[in-house]
Amino acid sequence: MLSEDELGRLCVVLVRARDPNNIGAVARAMYDFGFHDLRLVNEYPVPLERARSAIDASSVLETAREYTSVAEAVADCTLVAGTTAVGLRRKEHRLYTLAEAGPLLCGELSRAELSRAGFGSPTPKARVALLFGSEKTGLSNEELSHCHWLLTIPMHQTEGMRHASMNLGQAAAVCLYELVRNPKANKTEAKSLQEPLERATAEDLERLTQLTIEMMETSGYAQRHPANFDPTLIRRLVLRMGLDRPHALAWTGILRQVLWKLREPGNNAQDG
Amino acid sequence: MLSEDELGRLCVVLVRARDPNNIGAVARAMYDFGFHDLRLVNEYPVPLERARSAIDASSVLETAREYTSVAEAVADCTLVAGTTAVGLRRKEHRLYTLAEAGPLLCGELSRAELSRAGFGSPTPKARVALLFGSEKTGLSNEELSHCHWLLTIPMHQTEGMRHASMNLGQAAAVCLYELVRNPKANKTEAKSLQEPLERATAEDLERLTQLTIEMMETSGYAQRHPANFDPTLIRRLVLRMGLDRPHALAWTGILRQVLWKLREPGNNAQDG
Repeated sequence: MLSEDELGRLCVVLVRARDPNNIGAVARAMYDFGFHDLRLVNEYPVPLERARSAIDASSVLETAREYTSVAEAVADCTLVAGTTAVGLRRKEHRLYTLAEAGPLLCGELSRAELSRAGFGSPTPKARVALLFGSEKTGLSNEELSHCHWLLTIPMHQTEGMRHASMNLGQAAAVCLYELVRNPKANKTEAKSLQEPLERATAEDLERLTQLTIEMMETSGYAQRHPANFDPTLIRRLVLRMGLDRPHALAWTGILRQVLWKLREPGNNAQDG
Repeated sequence: MLSEDELGRLCVVLVRARDPNNIGAVARAMYDFGFHDLRLVNEYPVPLERARSAIDASSVLETAREYTSVAEAVADCTLVAGTTAVGLRRKEHRLYTLAEAGPLLCGELSRAELSRAGFGSPTPKARVALLFGSEKTGLSNEELSHCHWLLTIPMHQTEGMRHASMNLGQAAAVCLYELVRNPKANKTEAKSLQEPLERATAEDLERLTQLTIEMMETSGYAQRHPANFDPTLIRRLVLRMGLDRPHALAWTGILRQVLWKLREPGNNAQDG
């Protein structure tokens, strides 16, 4: 089995889930398999009273946290995996089947305390976010751009018909089951897949994304190439670099210096 | 993936499920993974109209069949597997984790048309029943006695607390996912587990159970040892013999002959 520590380092992030029954069902699946970090992303607060009545899942729902953006919800995570329905293949992301994703997720959960970064910042523990979109629309492009990669539950394809996505509570149950069904095998397989370097957190990379956006604005690039000035594209550009933490922090320092220089009085770059 | 033929040879049997929402959720999970043979066992008819509104699962629900006993529902099946919550270990049955059960179930589904039995009866195809009990009580002892073995979904154990069972729709989704997640690996692993001989169907074995019961009554054994005269115990006794089909049919013929002899006019065996 996964250790209590490992179970505690996976969070389920529900993006724009509105149906309290579905939220309750996800909480129950988490409780059944020993996970407890539930995060909800919604523009408006969700009436959780009904969901809180879900049998056995009350402890998960009581500690659920609400966020208004995906970026905030996954800030402390070192691996962000999005779920998507089959057929919605997106070239921008690597797509794994759930069975392939299991070792990657378990591998990240089982990483020991990360080694101290060379840049003086506190070192985060490995933490995994598993994102589920709204049942009707799934995850939007902007929401997907926060993900390192995507996973899909293999569903039956009826010829000529696009299969709708699974029920949210059932999809969550199936994904969490995959993590606990054989964690020993998952961990063994994961060892060979693990990168040696410390992973950057989503917060590190989002900071870098925001600095890149600022730099594009301040330097005049945004005005010259407005079609390229799309936060979703830029976020993907940064994630695609596959930066480990020391390099992400190094780039952050470099961009800050560039921005400082660009904003220096008398510097006219932004009037370009 | 499992072939259409293989998908068609698994039936999900819900015993005493009364909540139409749960039945609808199970039907939806079946539809999502490509299964379509749903069987309901209830003393009283279940109002399926509400369940039939389940999105995407209507085709499964329209063809669902209702039975009044487990014996009837699984009559044509060559492998009957029951689901049970962890902690309810029953010594009478072998208990597998779901991950262990996957190859056994997939192996049975992938068996080709069975070779013709030596006793002139039509040869059944391998067919698998996956039984789920009511959410509140699970499967009763009588219901469990129809199962060749049991499987359990590994759930998180909170110290000192007996964990309730999973939500029915989520449990079904997780079990069916295990069958489709990697059928190739399941089939390979199953080959080494497959028995060379043709499996008896549940109907064959139930007929043998009933003949054994009749023989116990007619011979006077039942009256002399009433504590041993329990249909549930007797069914288990018969299943435990692990009979292949030719042997089950041979025993059926032997018991029929014994019963005929016992009932012959002038034979006083039943009067002990």
